[in-house]
Amino acid sequence: MTQHRTLARPAGLAAASLAATSAFAFQQASASDLAQQGDDPAWEITEGLTTEIGPRPAGSDREAAARKWALKTLTQMGFANVREEPYQMPVWQRGEEKAWLTGPFLPQPLAITALGNSGSTGPKGIEGEVAYFDGFDALAAAPDSAVEGKIVFIDNQMEPTQDGSGYGLYGRGRFVGPTVAAKKGAIGIVIRSIGTDNHRNPHAGVTNFAEGVTPIPAGAISNPDADQLVRQRSRATGPLRMKLLLTPKMIGEQTSGNVIAEVPGSDPAASPVIIACHLDSWDLATGAIDDAAGCGIITAAAKHVMTAGQPRRTIRLLWAGAEEVGVFGGQAYFDAHGKEKHAVALESDFGADRVWRVDFKLPESAADLRKRIGAAVAPFGVVTGHGEAHGGADVGALIQAGVPAVDLQQDGTRYFDLHHTPDDTLDKIDPAQLRHNVVVWAATLSLLANSSDGELP
Amino acid sequence: MTQHRTLARPAGLAAASLAATSAFAFQQASASDLAQQGDDPAWEITEGLTTEIGPRPAGSDREAAARKWALKTLTQMGFANVREEPYQMPVWQRGEEKAWLTGPFLPQPLAITALGNSGSTGPKGIEGEVAYFDGFDALAAAPDSAVEGKIVFIDNQMEPTQDGSGYGLYGRGRFVGPTVAAKKGAIGIVIRSIGTDNHRNPHAGVTNFAEGVTPIPAGAISNPDADQLVRQRSRATGPLRMKLLLTPKMIGEQTSGNVIAEVPGSDPAASPVIIACHLDSWDLATGAIDDAAGCGIITAAAKHVMTAGQPRRTIRLLWAGAEEVGVFGGQAYFDAHGKEKHAVALESDFGADRVWRVDFKLPESAADLRKRIGAAVAPFGVVTGHGEAHGGADVGALIQAGVPAVDLQQDGTRYFDLHHTPDDTLDKIDPAQLRHNVVVWAATLSLLANSSDGELP
Repeated sequence: MTQHRTLARPAGLAAASLAATSAFAFQQASASDLAQQGDDPAWEITEGLTTEIGPRPAGSDREAAARKWALKTLTQMGFANVREEPYQMPVWQRGEEKAWLTGPFLPQPLAITALGNSGSTGPKGIEGEVAYFDGFDALAAAPDSAVEGKIVFIDNQMEPTQDGSGYGLYGRGRFVGPTVAAKKGAIGIVIRSIGTDNHRNPHAGVTNFAEGVTPIPAGAISNPDADQLVRQRSRATGPLRMKLLLTPKMIGEQTSGNVIAEVPGSDPAASPVIIACHLDSWDLATGAIDDAAGCGIITAAAKHVMTAGQPRRTIRLLWAGAEEVGVFGGQAYFDAHGKEKHAVALESDFGADRVWRVDFKLPESAADLRKRIGAAVAPFGVVTGHGEAHGGADVGALIQAGVPAVDLQQDGTRYFDLHHTPDDTLDKIDPAQLRHNVVVWAATLSLLANSSDGELP
Repeated sequence: MTQHRTLARPAGLAAASLAATSAFAFQQASASDLAQQGDDPAWEITEGLTTEIGPRPAGSDREAAARKWALKTLTQMGFANVREEPYQMPVWQRGEEKAWLTGPFLPQPLAITALGNSGSTGPKGIEGEVAYFDGFDALAAAPDSAVEGKIVFIDNQMEPTQDGSGYGLYGRGRFVGPTVAAKKGAIGIVIRSIGTDNHRNPHAGVTNFAEGVTPIPAGAISNPDADQLVRQRSRATGPLRMKLLLTPKMIGEQTSGNVIAEVPGSDPAASPVIIACHLDSWDLATGAIDDAAGCGIITAAAKHVMTAGQPRRTIRLLWAGAEEVGVFGGQAYFDAHGKEKHAVALESDFGADRVWRVDFKLPESAADLRKRIGAAVAPFGVVTGHGEAHGGADVGALIQAGVPAVDLQQDGTRYFDLHHTPDDTLDKIDPAQLRHNVVVWAATLSLLANSSDGELP
C-alpha cells in the first residue's frame, strides 16, 4: 500500500544486500530464503505487533496485551523458557493537549504533545508571555527574572547525523530544561521538538524533574510550529504570548513486565548471550521503528541461529517493558538477573535502517573474536568502529556492571525524523534494510553464541 | 530554520533559474534583483500572510483579517483601485474530530479530519461495522444491503503525477462518495485521504451532498492509518468496527469577500488582463502552498511588470475569498464583473514548485502572441503544451463564459503530499522555485498586458 509514496526508499539495497550475502557463506542460503521466499520473521513480528496491538504505553493494558502477544509468538516460533517477569512502576498518563500562540497576532493553534512526567495546566489552561531561549545553555544562564511567571520556549534545531550523536546535545532541552525552568519560576515550558523532520508532528519523550522540584506543564511543539513562533517573534513589536492546555496525570503504581525467551545452548555451563529490544512504545503511534523492529530483528536473528544448529551458549532474548519512560524493564531484569554471569549483551533500539558500524567492548581475550565478527559483517558494508560499545538502555545496567558488549550501530540519519512521533508507523520501515539488519545480527550472534569460555566470561 | 531538514530541496534551481534568466533580456536585471538583493515580494507576501494571519477559513473572522492585511499590503506596494468586494455565504464549521478502529483488535486511534459539509455524529459519536470498498467504483456498484447501517470505507491510494491529473480520478471518493454512501443507507463514511504522502496528516477537503440527501458524518484518515485499517482487515477473522466522533455544524450565512487591485494600463479602452489566487485556506494549517504562494506569485509578477513600465492593458489582481469550500469568491466576481470585457484570465493555485508547461486557450488572432510567450518562457525550462488551458477555479466562470486563458502549469509531483493537510506550512516552500514562478509569470504577463486589441478581445 505504501511503496509508491514519496518517502525515499533505497531501492538498490535489497539487491545489494543479497549480493553481499552471497559473498558470505554462512548466511547465503538463509538470507536468500528470508528475502525471496517471504519467510521474514522480523517483518512478521514488526507488522503483527504494530497492527494487532498498536500503541503500547508502559504500564498500560495495551502493554499487557503486547506481553501476551509476545508470549504466544515466541512460543510458536519454538523458543524455550518463554516467560513473563512482571514488576510495578509509577505511571504517567497523557490528557488533553493543546496550545496556541495568542499574541500579538490572531490566535493560532500549535501542534503540541506533553512530555512524559509533565505537570498539568488544569482544565482551564494557562496563558503567559513567552520567554525565548535559543538553546538549553541560554536558559541555564538566564537570571530568574527573565523566566519568572512566564512560559519558557527553548529553540534548538536538531541536525541529523548517521550515528544519532546529536541526541545527547540537543536532548538537554527536554531531559533537563523543564527542571531548570521550574527552578527559575517558569509557569510552563515548551520546547522545539527534539527531531529532524519538518512535519506537524511533535516528538514526545520523557523528562525527569529533579527531586523536590514540582513538575510544571511541559510540552514539545513540531518543528514547523517552532519556526512559526520564531517568525512571529521577529515580526512582533511586543512580546509573544502563548496558551497551554495540558492535563496529564500520575495514576500511581501499575504492573508492567519483561518477556524473556531462550535458545538453549549445548553447554549448560556456558554463560548466555543476552540480546534485547523493548516492547513498550510511546502512545502517539504504533512504535514501528521504536521498537517493534528491534524485537523483530533480534528475534529473527536468534531464530536464524537456532535453525542453523544448536549454539554452544544459550541465547537469551529480553523484550523489555517500560523503556521509554525510564528503563524500568531493564532495571527489573538487572535486579533479578544482574548477579548471573552473562557472556555479552547487545540491543537493537535505533530503528530499522541498515547497520553500518560494529563497536566492541570486549575483554582482551576476545581479540580474535572481534576480528572474526569484523570479517563476518564487512561483506554487508559494516565497518569496525574505533570507539567503545555502550549497549542499549535495557542492557545498560548489565554493561555498567561489567558485562561485555557489542553494538551493531544502525544508520540513524532519518531516525529522528520519526522518533516518538505519530509518524512512527510500519510504512516507514524499508523491508530490505530490515532484512539487512537480521543478516548482520545473525552473523554476529552466531559467532558470539559459539565463542569459547576463554574468549568471553 | 528549515534548510537542514530532510525535505528534499532542489539546491541547483536557484543557480539554474538565474542562469536561465540571463538568457532572457527582459527579465535579466530584475530577476537578479529579486534573487540576490532580498527584494522578494512573493516570499514576503507568503511569509507575511501565513505568519501574521495563519489559517484563513472561508467566512471566518480570520479570513476577514486576511482581507484587511491584503488591502494594506497591496496599497503599500503601490497598486491602484485596491478594494474589498464582500458577499454572503453559508459556513460549515469544524468541531471535534476523532476516530478509532474498535474491533476485532484493541481500540486504536485514527488520525482523521471531517470533510467540509460533513454531518455530525453528535457528541457521543457513532460506532459500526466497516463496509470496505477498494475504490469509488466499487462503492457505486455495491447493493444497498452491503452498506446499510455501516460505516463505509473507501480505499484508493492516490499516485503523484507532475500535472496533478490524478485529483479528478482519485478525488471522486471525496467529491461524490459521501452522497453515494448516504443514499445507500450508510451511517457514516471514511475515506483514505486524497493525498500522496505517508504522514499521519489527514487531507481535508469539501464534499457536496446532492440536493435532498441528508449529510452523514464524513471524514478522511491519513494514509498510514488507512494502511493500518487494510492490514487489520487482512488479519481479522471477523468484520472490522470503527467509532467516529465528528461534531461539525453549519453556522449560517456569513460575510466573505474578494480583494481586488490593479496596475492601470496606459490605454483605458483596452480590456484588462485578470490574474487570480485565493486568500482563504483550510483551517488545519497556514495555507502556504494553498494558496498564499499563489497570491505572492501573481502579485510579485504584477509588481514587476508595473516597475518595468506602464503596460498597455490594465492588470487586475483578484485575491479571491472562499475558494476551498465552493469557489464563492470566484462566483461573486463573475456575478459582479462577468459582463465586463476581459482580455485573458490566469490563476496561480497549485503550490509553489516550478512552472514546467504553458497551455493556451486563445483566439486564432493570438497565434503570434502564443509564439512570443512560448519563446519568452522556454529559457526557463517551460515547454508549450499541446492541450487547452482551463484556468484556475476562481476564473473558471469567466473562462467558461468565453474569456481566453493561459495556464502556467506548476510541477505538482509533491503538491498532494501537502494539499489540505496540517503540513501546508511555509517551510515546505522552496524560495528558488517560488522566484522561478515569479519570473515566468512576469514574462508572460508583460506580453499579455502589452498585447494589441487585434490579438486579444
